Amino acid sequence: MTTYTAIHLKNRPDDGKIGEHLFEVKEKTVPEPENNQVLVRQTYMSLDPAMLGWMTADEESYIAPVELGEVMRSSGVGTIVSSRHPDYSEGDKVMGMMGWQEYVISDGKGLNKLQEGVDEETALCVFGLPGLTATQGLLNIGQPQEGETLIVTGAAGSVGSIVGQMAKADGLRVIGVVGSDEKADWITNELGFDGAINYKTDDLQAKLEALAPDRIDVFFENTGGPIQSHIVNYMNAHARVVVCGMISDYQAETPAPGPNWLPLIKKRIRIQGFAMPDHLDNSAQLIAQLTPYVQQGKIKYRSHIIEGLTSAMEGLNLLFEGKNKGKLMVKL
Amino acid sequence: MTTYTAIHLKNRPDDGKIGEHLFEVKEKTVPEPENNQVLVRQTYMSLDPAMLGWMTADEESYIAPVELGEVMRSSGVGTIVSSRHPDYSEGDKVMGMMGWQEYVISDGKGLNKLQEGVDEETALCVFGLPGLTATQGLLNIGQPQEGETLIVTGAAGSVGSIVGQMAKADGLRVIGVVGSDEKADWITNELGFDGAINYKTDDLQAKLEALAPDRIDVFFENTGGPIQSHIVNYMNAHARVVVCGMISDYQAETPAPGPNWLPLIKKRIRIQGFAMPDHLDNSAQLIAQLTPYVQQGKIKYRSHIIEGLTSAMEGLNLLFEGKNKGKLMVKL
Repeated sequence: MTTYTAIHLKNRPDDGKIGEHLFEVKEKTVPEPENNQVLVRQTYMSLDPAMLGWMTADEESYIAPVELGEVMRSSGVGTIVSSRHPDYSEGDKVMGMMGWQEYVISDGKGLNKLQEGVDEETALCVFGLPGLTATQGLLNIGQPQEGETLIVTGAAGSVGSIVGQMAKADGLRVIGVVGSDEKADWITNELGFDGAINYKTDDLQAKLEALAPDRIDVFFENTGGPIQSHIVNYMNAHARVVVCGMISDYQAETPAPGPNWLPLIKKRIRIQGFAMPDHLDNSAQLIAQLTPYVQQGKIKYRSHIIEGLTSAMEGLNLLFEGKNKGKLMVKL
Repeated sequence: MTTYTAIHLKNRPDDGKIGEHLFEVKEKTVPEPENNQVLVRQTYMSLDPAMLGWMTADEESYIAPVELGEVMRSSGVGTIVSSRHPDYSEGDKVMGMMGWQEYVISDGKGLNKLQEGVDEETALCVFGLPGLTATQGLLNIGQPQEGETLIVTGAAGSVGSIVGQMAKADGLRVIGVVGSDEKADWITNELGFDGAINYKTDDLQAKLEALAPDRIDVFFENTGGPIQSHIVNYMNAHARVVVCGMISDYQAETPAPGPNWLPLIKKRIRIQGFAMPDHLDNSAQLIAQLTPYVQQGKIKYRSHIIEGLTSAMEGLNLLFEGKNKGKLMVKL
């Protein structure tokens, strides 16, 4: 009889602080699958900014929170170690919502086998929630056109880095906003962005004008923060704003004000907020839209891997402190 | 040889102040129409908030400013007093861009005869720019659905009063935001709005919650101001915001900040700015959309008429001080 570790949500982060005090670590016995079930050993687990929302009982949220006492929610990849399900064999690599636990029983619903030649890291970094989010937000909402200029905040993040590379592949000029010179180097030298703005150290307006002489047509917003107003005031007629994340405000007691709306009239700007739970039924279509970019080698990524399930409890803070370098995940 | 009065733009309102110091009043000789021209005597001239933009040389604007020395731009209605154009006869009532002058020569381009049974006031109040703006913004951008709740700011204004009445006719719950109790009475008792908020005296949040228990689905924004953030934070999933005007900021040196964007993600809100010059090519379609509401008696209006061409120079301030009671126009 083998045991495994699972982490349950014990308290809500009412003061926005995340750490071990919110969770209970339990040792459990590894179960056997019943008929039409599989047992999955999770190998990599994704950590995402949305988790703060899942831990919070916010009646305004678009997705049900994790109940107190439940295993914490997460997506991950793993290997089938035992199958009594006709569609799965021992050794299959699969992806799905697995939670903060080393083993999980599944009836196959919401489980997807990794595509041929896709390893676990690529699966989590590109074909997981970040890639689907980038695809829906950029292609289906932002409607980028060749020759336009795109700016993306959180540009070295898991969503932003894919957004920028897809836009480059489609022939746009691409500017990324990041929080360190190291990230700026990475997106320009490795990912091929046309320019980077370090929002912590650069003169925002001057750098924006220097890097985007033809102004901005598509603004993909992942972070919020003071550069938001500079961008909205520097857009072209009929520009589109895709509001995907506001990570700088998730933990704020009083969210910062946004841009004045006068430019929305002068430039006939459209601002569209979106959230992936609305679009997950369409994930097959999103994967089909994303796949050619990956097959043509257009999407590089970088993962930030921390080790061991229990490292997740404090590791989540890396996201909110902007200290992760690439897609944050836990290797189990 | 008869003379007439025309008013030319002499200075730009760089400090936002409007008055006689900006204009030059000229006496001119009434001209004779040449072949394929008509001479129109203007009878009613529209005064609109957009005029401040037309007077300002703002490179950000979507429409060319009035050049210094030119006759000030405006729309109006008038009567053909002499015609050498095959499509027009003496006595025809017409509508078009006539400028701040008592007589105008036209080759018929952009001139429309008033529909049967439509008098000059109705033409300017309903089928002029305000009605087309209301139609485009509400029906084509806001996409209201029966049973939803709409809130409109500047609700007693020329655009807002039509927006609210069209929405009521389409089966929405309609709340209007106004700046006086007199306007609140008018929109609820005369126009049939379900409720009114006086933004100067009411507790905004409390009144909003009391009048819109099912929250807001469509927000038609004509004014800007502090209620904007209350509304954006009180919207339903997939709500739409139509940004038509920001009159409270047109004269501001530093425009007020707008709402934080977190609710845009949580509620997947779309915000769309628009401006009528983009849609005037489509005015026949807009008139066709608007006409049934008028024919069914659904659109009441109220005009605020000032007398004499030269009264326009100071009269324009009524709009920016919120002192006009209904569509502001000059009777010539």
